[in-house]
Amino acid sequence: MEPIDFRTEPGRYRHWRIEIDGEVAFLVMDVDPAGGLSADYELKLNSYDLAVDIELNDAVQRLRFEHPQVRAVVLKSGKDNVFCAGANIRMLGRASHGHKVNFCKFTNETRLAIEDASEHSRQTYLAAVNGSCAGGGYELALAADHIMLVDDRRSSVALPETPLLAVLPGTGGLTRVTDKRKVRRDLADVFCTTEEGVRGQKAVEWRLVDEVVAKSKWDDAVKARAKELAARSDRPREAKGIALAPLERRIEDGVVGYANVRVNIAREKGLATILVQGPRQAAPESADAAQALGAAFWPLAVARELEDAILHLRFNEPTLGLLLLRTEGDPQLVLDHDRLLARGQDHWLLREIRHYLKRVLKRLDVTARSLITLIEPGSCFCGSLTELTFAADRALMLIGTRKGDNRPPAAIVLSEANFGLYPMGNGLTRLATRFLGEPQALERAKEKIGAPLEAEEAAALGLVTAALEDFDWDDELRVMIEERTSFSPDALTGMEANLRFAGPETMETKIFGRLTAWQNWIFQRPNSVGAEGALKRYGSGIQPSFDRERI
Amino acid sequence: MEPIDFRTEPGRYRHWRIEIDGEVAFLVMDVDPAGGLSADYELKLNSYDLAVDIELNDAVQRLRFEHPQVRAVVLKSGKDNVFCAGANIRMLGRASHGHKVNFCKFTNETRLAIEDASEHSRQTYLAAVNGSCAGGGYELALAADHIMLVDDRRSSVALPETPLLAVLPGTGGLTRVTDKRKVRRDLADVFCTTEEGVRGQKAVEWRLVDEVVAKSKWDDAVKARAKELAARSDRPREAKGIALAPLERRIEDGVVGYANVRVNIAREKGLATILVQGPRQAAPESADAAQALGAAFWPLAVARELEDAILHLRFNEPTLGLLLLRTEGDPQLVLDHDRLLARGQDHWLLREIRHYLKRVLKRLDVTARSLITLIEPGSCFCGSLTELTFAADRALMLIGTRKGDNRPPAAIVLSEANFGLYPMGNGLTRLATRFLGEPQALERAKEKIGAPLEAEEAAALGLVTAALEDFDWDDELRVMIEERTSFSPDALTGMEANLRFAGPETMETKIFGRLTAWQNWIFQRPNSVGAEGALKRYGSGIQPSFDRERI
Repeated sequence: MEPIDFRTEPGRYRHWRIEIDGEVAFLVMDVDPAGGLSADYELKLNSYDLAVDIELNDAVQRLRFEHPQVRAVVLKSGKDNVFCAGANIRMLGRASHGHKVNFCKFTNETRLAIEDASEHSRQTYLAAVNGSCAGGGYELALAADHIMLVDDRRSSVALPETPLLAVLPGTGGLTRVTDKRKVRRDLADVFCTTEEGVRGQKAVEWRLVDEVVAKSKWDDAVKARAKELAARSDRPREAKGIALAPLERRIEDGVVGYANVRVNIAREKGLATILVQGPRQAAPESADAAQALGAAFWPLAVARELEDAILHLRFNEPTLGLLLLRTEGDPQLVLDHDRLLARGQDHWLLREIRHYLKRVLKRLDVTARSLITLIEPGSCFCGSLTELTFAADRALMLIGTRKGDNRPPAAIVLSEANFGLYPMGNGLTRLATRFLGEPQALERAKEKIGAPLEAEEAAALGLVTAALEDFDWDDELRVMIEERTSFSPDALTGMEANLRFAGPETMETKIFGRLTAWQNWIFQRPNSVGAEGALKRYGSGIQPSFDRERI
Repeated sequence: MEPIDFRTEPGRYRHWRIEIDGEVAFLVMDVDPAGGLSADYELKLNSYDLAVDIELNDAVQRLRFEHPQVRAVVLKSGKDNVFCAGANIRMLGRASHGHKVNFCKFTNETRLAIEDASEHSRQTYLAAVNGSCAGGGYELALAADHIMLVDDRRSSVALPETPLLAVLPGTGGLTRVTDKRKVRRDLADVFCTTEEGVRGQKAVEWRLVDEVVAKSKWDDAVKARAKELAARSDRPREAKGIALAPLERRIEDGVVGYANVRVNIAREKGLATILVQGPRQAAPESADAAQALGAAFWPLAVARELEDAILHLRFNEPTLGLLLLRTEGDPQLVLDHDRLLARGQDHWLLREIRHYLKRVLKRLDVTARSLITLIEPGSCFCGSLTELTFAADRALMLIGTRKGDNRPPAAIVLSEANFGLYPMGNGLTRLATRFLGEPQALERAKEKIGAPLEAEEAAALGLVTAALEDFDWDDELRVMIEERTSFSPDALTGMEANLRFAGPETMETKIFGRLTAWQNWIFQRPNSVGAEGALKRYGSGIQPSFDRERI
C-alpha cells in the first residue's frame, strides 16, 4: 500500500477551497465524495476521512504563513443545506482500531491548530453553519471562536454519535461542549443523546452556538461578523506571506530523508532514529532577512520536516515502537537562530514559527511511541532543540569524548526558549512540568541559561536521565532498547500518556487524556465495533445488538 | 451466585487487624490466602482481591467513626519481608472485564477515602513499608501522607505492572507518582518499567518514599513518626466513638430494602429506582443528642444505606443501566437535619458525617449508570438531598399536583449545604460545576436558599432539566427511559464520564478520567487479556506474545 502522505497544497485540494477577500478568508468545505483515502466508501454530505483532514490541516497552516493579512477565517460549506455530516461512518466501520485512533488524534490536532490560530496568531475562526451540522461537523464548528447557525427551521447542530453509532463525539466534542461552550451538564446530556440535534433560538439558549441568523440576512451577517472579528486582530495589514514550498522527501532503503531531518528505520529492532541537523549557515541578521529565506529558514524547515516525519511514522510505521532522537550540528548556530526567534516577538513570521514549533513538539508529546533522546559528541541540543530532550521519556548523555573521535564532549545549552516559548498542552513548559516537585531545580536550571552543560552537570541538574561513560554506553543502550521493545505496546502507550502530563489539566489535555482514552476504549468494545455493533450495522437497516452490561 | 456483600465488621475480618495504641492505630494487613472471593486463586504474599479491599474500606471508615481519639494510622504488614504484592494476578487474569473495572473503581475509592481521612478527618495515614511493596501494594502506600521504607538492602517499592503484566498501575499509581509524589517524569518512566523497583536512599532521592530507616531502628522510628503526625491533628482526645451497627438489609422480590433507602428493580426495563426516605423524627437538638442516636442518626443512616445500595448495584446488578432517584418525606425535617450538620462545624461526628455524605455522593458521580432524578409531590429534595438532583444526568420535576393526590406541589429547597459541603472530585460543588458558563445563575440560586422552589421556578433557575405537567409526565418519562435504555451501555458510560466533570481536574478526577480510562482500554486489549496476553500467561512459564502495533 502507498504510504499516507500528509504533504499537499491548495492546487491539489479536492475538498477545500481558500477564498481570500482582503482581511477575511473563506475556508470552504466542499468534499469530493470520490476523493477519500479508499474507494470503499463515498464521502457524501461533506463527511470526511483523513484525506479531507490532511487538506484542512494544510489550509490552516498556509493561512497563517502565506496570508499574514488575513485576520479572520470563515469556515463554511460549499454545499447546500449541509455544513458537514462528520467523520464518514463507513470509513469508521471498516478502519482498523489503530487507524481510528490515529485518525482521531490527527483531527484533534487540526482542531487545536484552529484554536491556536485564533488565540495566538490572531487569525480568528468563525464557523458559519449554513446547513445541517452533525457529529464531527459540529466538532469542527466547536473549534471556531464564534459559531453562527442559519435559522431556517431545519438546520441544527447535533452530536448523534452515542444514540446513532454507539461511540463518543471524540474529536473534542464532549470536552468542548462542557469546557469551552460551558453547556449545563443536563442540557449537554440531552443534546448528546438527541439524534436530530438542536436548532434555532434553543441552540443559543443552550450555549451551543453564539447566534442564529435568518436565511435572508445570512451572507451579510456572516460578513459583518467576520469584519468585526478581523478588526480585533493585531496581524500586519501590509505584510507579504511566505510560500510553504513543497516539502522534499525521499523514502528509500529504510531511510526517510529531508533536508534537515533524517529518519533511519531499524525495522527488525522495532525502532527508528530521528536525526535533526542543526543550521548549516549563520542565522539571518534580522526578521526581514529570515523572511527572505522563506521556507528555507532553518527553524521553519526543521519544524515542517519533523512534523512530517512524526505523522509518517504514526500512520505508516505502526510497529516502530521506539523513537531515538538525535541532533547533529554547530551548537552556536542553533543558539543564534533561537536569539532571533526570541528577539522578533513582534514580527508576525517569527511568531508563527515559534507557535508552529510549539505545535510540532506537542505532536511529539501525544505520539504513542517511546521517546529516548541520545546526547553525544557532535550533537547540538541547545535552546529550542533541547525541547527534544525534555519531550522524551528518557535522555541519555555521554560523558566526555569517544575514543578516536576528536570532537569535544557533548553539552546541552539552555536558552530563554526553554522557559516559555513552547508550553505543553497542560499550559506549562516541559521544564516546569519536569520539576513540579522541585521548583528550586527549575530556578537552578534557569541560572544556567547560555552555559554549556556537559553530561555530569546536566545529570546533576536533573536535565537528563543518565550520564554514561563511553565504555558503558553501547551496552546500556542496547539493554534499554531490548527491554523497551519487549514490553506490551499498549501498556507503554497508556503509561506514557499518564507520565508525560503531570500537573494541571487544560481543555487540550482533557481531550487527549480523558476523552480520547474513553473513545479508544469504546472503539474496542463489541457494542460499537463487533459484528452486531452499531458501527458495523449502520446503514444496514438492522438494529445493532448490545450487551446490556454496564461497565 | 451469592451477591457480593460490602457489609462487614472487624470481628469478621480475615485479612486485616486494627490495633489501637492510644492516639495511634495500626492497620495491619495480614491476608488469609484462602480468604479471597473465589477459591480459584490463593492470596499469597499479601496480595489482594475485592474481599480484602472490602475489609480495608470498612476499617478506614470505622477508624473515623468508632475511634475519634485516633489521630494517626500506621498501615503495615503482618507478614515478614512483604508489605503487599498488589492485586492478585490470577484473580485479574480470570476476572471479567466488568469485574476488573468495578474492582479498580472500588479500590480507587478506598485509597481516596484514606487520603480524605488524612486531609479532612485529620486522621493521618503513615505507610510503614516493612518489606517488598509492589504494584497495588505501592499504590496503597501512595495513599498515605508519609511513606517509610525499611532499609534492609532488599525491600523495595515497585510498579512492575507494565513490564510484568502489560497493564497499568491503575489504582492511582501513575497519577500519584506524577502528581502527588511529583516524581520527575523520566525517573518515573524508569521506575515504572523496572520490575524489581527501587530501594534505599535512591527511593528517597527519586521522591518515591519520604524516608528509609535501618531495620534495627524501624519500630521506634515508625512509632516516633506516628506520634509526630498524631500531634498535628485536631481530633478530640476525649471523644467517644459511635458504633457502626450492622446495616440491616433485605433482598427479596426485586426489592433491596434498608431502613431509609429502598431499591426497586425493574429488570425487564433495565432500571432500578432508588427511593430515599426523609427523616421520620425531628432533628436532634444538639450534636451530642445526634451522637446519642449513633448509627441511627438519619444523615449517617442514609449515607450508609445509599452507599451500600450503590455498591450492590454496581457489582451485583450490572444490567440495570438506568437509576431513577426519588425521595419521600417531610422537607422541613431534612432542612432541620441540614442545619444541625452545618452548625456543628466543630463537632467531630458531624464533620465525619458531612465528609461521608460527600464521599457517597462522589461514588454516585463515578457510577457508570445513567442517573435521572424524579421530583414529585411528596418528595423532599431539600438541602443535602438536593445533591441527588445535581448529581443526576437529568432531573424531571412535576408541575403542580396530581389528580387525586392532595399533597402540595413538589418543591426543592436549597440550603448552605449545596454551596460548599459536598464538593465533587473536581473540587467544585455540583452547582458551581453546573453553572460554569453562567456564574450569575449560581448567584441567583444562592439568593434562593431556604425558599421552596416549585417546578417552573426551579426550571427557570436551571436547577432541573425539565418541568412537566401531570398529563405529560408518564409519556415523557416512558419515552425517555425507553430511549436511554436502548443506547449502547459503553457509549453512555464514556459520555457520562466526560459530561459529569466539566471544569478543573484534580488528582482525583485524573485518576478516574485519564488513568482509569486508559486502564480500561488496556483491559480490553489482547496484549494483556488475550489467550497469549501477559495476564493470561503470567506464571505459566511461557512468555506472552504481543502484537507490536503501537496505537
